[in-house]
Amino acid sequence: MTDDAIRVDYALAMDDGSGCGLTNAQLEAEAPAFERGLRRVLAEAEGGRLGFWGLPDDTIDLEKVQAFASELSDAVTDIVVLGIGGSSLGGRALVEALGPAVAPPDARRIHYPDNSDPWRLDGLLRALDPKATLAVVISKSGGTVETAAQLLVVRQWFRDGGVAMKDHLVAITDPESGLLRSLADTEGLRSFDIPSNVGGRFSVLTPVGLLPGALAGFDMAGLLKGAGAMRDRCARTVLKENPAGIVAALHVLHHRLHGRPIHVMMPYSDALRGYANWFVQLWAESLGKRLDRQERVVETGPTPLPAVGATDQHAQVQLFMEGPKDKLVTFVALDQPLAKRAIPTEEGPYAYLGGHDLAELLDYERRATALALAGDGRPSLTIHLPRLDAPALGGLFFLMEAATAIAGELYGIDAFDQPGVELGKRLAYGLLGRKGYEDAASEVQELERTLPRHRV
Amino acid sequence: MTDDAIRVDYALAMDDGSGCGLTNAQLEAEAPAFERGLRRVLAEAEGGRLGFWGLPDDTIDLEKVQAFASELSDAVTDIVVLGIGGSSLGGRALVEALGPAVAPPDARRIHYPDNSDPWRLDGLLRALDPKATLAVVISKSGGTVETAAQLLVVRQWFRDGGVAMKDHLVAITDPESGLLRSLADTEGLRSFDIPSNVGGRFSVLTPVGLLPGALAGFDMAGLLKGAGAMRDRCARTVLKENPAGIVAALHVLHHRLHGRPIHVMMPYSDALRGYANWFVQLWAESLGKRLDRQERVVETGPTPLPAVGATDQHAQVQLFMEGPKDKLVTFVALDQPLAKRAIPTEEGPYAYLGGHDLAELLDYERRATALALAGDGRPSLTIHLPRLDAPALGGLFFLMEAATAIAGELYGIDAFDQPGVELGKRLAYGLLGRKGYEDAASEVQELERTLPRHRV
Repeated sequence: MTDDAIRVDYALAMDDGSGCGLTNAQLEAEAPAFERGLRRVLAEAEGGRLGFWGLPDDTIDLEKVQAFASELSDAVTDIVVLGIGGSSLGGRALVEALGPAVAPPDARRIHYPDNSDPWRLDGLLRALDPKATLAVVISKSGGTVETAAQLLVVRQWFRDGGVAMKDHLVAITDPESGLLRSLADTEGLRSFDIPSNVGGRFSVLTPVGLLPGALAGFDMAGLLKGAGAMRDRCARTVLKENPAGIVAALHVLHHRLHGRPIHVMMPYSDALRGYANWFVQLWAESLGKRLDRQERVVETGPTPLPAVGATDQHAQVQLFMEGPKDKLVTFVALDQPLAKRAIPTEEGPYAYLGGHDLAELLDYERRATALALAGDGRPSLTIHLPRLDAPALGGLFFLMEAATAIAGELYGIDAFDQPGVELGKRLAYGLLGRKGYEDAASEVQELERTLPRHRV
Repeated sequence: MTDDAIRVDYALAMDDGSGCGLTNAQLEAEAPAFERGLRRVLAEAEGGRLGFWGLPDDTIDLEKVQAFASELSDAVTDIVVLGIGGSSLGGRALVEALGPAVAPPDARRIHYPDNSDPWRLDGLLRALDPKATLAVVISKSGGTVETAAQLLVVRQWFRDGGVAMKDHLVAITDPESGLLRSLADTEGLRSFDIPSNVGGRFSVLTPVGLLPGALAGFDMAGLLKGAGAMRDRCARTVLKENPAGIVAALHVLHHRLHGRPIHVMMPYSDALRGYANWFVQLWAESLGKRLDRQERVVETGPTPLPAVGATDQHAQVQLFMEGPKDKLVTFVALDQPLAKRAIPTEEGPYAYLGGHDLAELLDYERRATALALAGDGRPSLTIHLPRLDAPALGGLFFLMEAATAIAGELYGIDAFDQPGVELGKRLAYGLLGRKGYEDAASEVQELERTLPRHRV
């Protein structure tokens, strides 16, 4: 670990730092389970069943993406990314973290309508010119209904605008199977791969994140390099040398031993708001499971909660400080700020602020909040980034992906499926009148018809 | 209640609707506590100690705000609102909900830098012209450190830009006391009031929300009218006739009787994302308390969780469906969508979507998700808005404010203070070297110096 590395400081998550009850002995007692879990993850990666672990080495897709970005005409001023969930959150977090807070007027804009809410998509399409727009449609399976609906709307918009589909539409999907793959192949669309062994929420280091990042002009080689450096640290079998192991073990132990199922992700950086949202999906969808590995009903899973400092000191910290001791907070700190702005000195009541910098104030607030929580036995850990650039962000993505995989092992569940959303999908297909889902349609009608009346 | 009214449908929060365990008898058993709590809230309002209840009738501030907005020069193209927490979340939710998804290029822009992160504020000030900018600084107490720091930066920016402070800076603060009030009075700045008996998180119907709304050209009289109609419904002492009473009782009972402390706010509308964030502060800061009314240590409070449908079906719903049964979900549905966009018909795998509308798809997804949750005994309620306009939004704001006040009574805590953030403030003042906080400075240094080393 060099001075340039991401550092996880967990003094305030331990009993001797914050009196929160988690002892060194308890942490050490989890080391064998951690080591077994990690070895299983590494074996799955080695066996080609778990693809995210190897993504930092994937230079082929990186080169494809970079070539495409450098060849794209300057006449394309707007990129519209069609995708939802894992096809949206990672790329969005990346573009938000590495871009300027307020883009210069001549910068290429990247839009994430995300939701199938027509309010946003319709507004966006009215504001854009199809001739100057590239749409990137992302769906691993190709079957995601919201993305499919958006795609149909955008395709019509391109046709109405008289532009050729294959110059303005790019697909990112499974290399071999699925509806979007066949559409891309049939129409000869330019396409990029999400490897079959990489799930949507672990896909930010595939073209799902790399393509929008490259189109925005960010250092995607650096992103993968930083992720690779973190990956190597996360492969260490000694718990106290493995940042992902420590992050996973702390969360699982605070949950299991101390009744803390609420896991707060609270970067002190506006630029990492999207990262907190990305983490919410990763943690919630991976760890919230009905069955354990032995198919026993466990209905387990922590609840991730997004927050941003200092903003949420004025919204959620009252609850974190005084409510139930059911939370573990992860702060993210930038050791070098993204920007600075000196606070001018003025006579009068605010004089004490003069001579400080806004960035310094933000850092003081983070330290004060962590210490105030610890003073009442409320634990936290802090991930320190040397600065917020592409390598650090790549490391930060990989750290929590690896922590999620290891936490899945410690919880004893499969972190890589999401069976719970199937019923809702089936009922929605029924309402849409999709062929083959007639029984779902009658199920919904029957359910709604027989509901008791409770309303006010 | 007319057809035009907001409707709370809670069939799926009751045992006979979803098998979630909450019976009619349990709900009725809470009615006396509800009635006592409501009468206390009404008495506090009547006695002038609880100001939010009377805000829908406050036409004086409305007229001041409207007059200011109509007189403001068209040369002002950008409004920068300086405020954080309760001084930001409500106005932001309002501007987001009533504005277009993508603003036309000639519309007046309203910016909420919010956080003291220089990345955003610095970027914003670089992009704006001080001559065409109005800054609105909001702080009830005038002492909020992040807002004070932003104010000093913006004042310097105005001075550097050669513009007169009193033409470009407006204050919203306590009518009588506080640092911001004295600054405004000393310099003759235009100012608006947050009544002394209205707390920040209950202030959206004061100039805190009304001024940005009026400056954006929205119907603020309609907002208050809708809030007033809801207020009258929320004054009814029969639990089953009182929407706020039902919302409060359901949340408290699912928490107390069924171990559901996680309260999800999930509008199926991108335009209500800001509303969900506003609710998080309102619920967390009001109900997360260490002491009850008898000063006993209770460390209570539910954890609010923001979500947006359909987006979070691809992020959080897996956890809601399969994880612990510790959640109650509140959906918000728009009976008439904000926008429509027909999904074109195309031959091929996505043909089943043709002929539907994006708005219809969103509504199907909401119904399917609620029913899927209920099918496994996971409760939800749905707030139906006839449409998303100013009156409906006013009603929606007031509904949850009243529900919060009543929930505070049912939890037996004071919903209107926030003592838990004082320690963090004191430590931050110490780090800033503020006079009078020297002991806090040494406290932080001592704490950090003696921390055990746990890092990786």
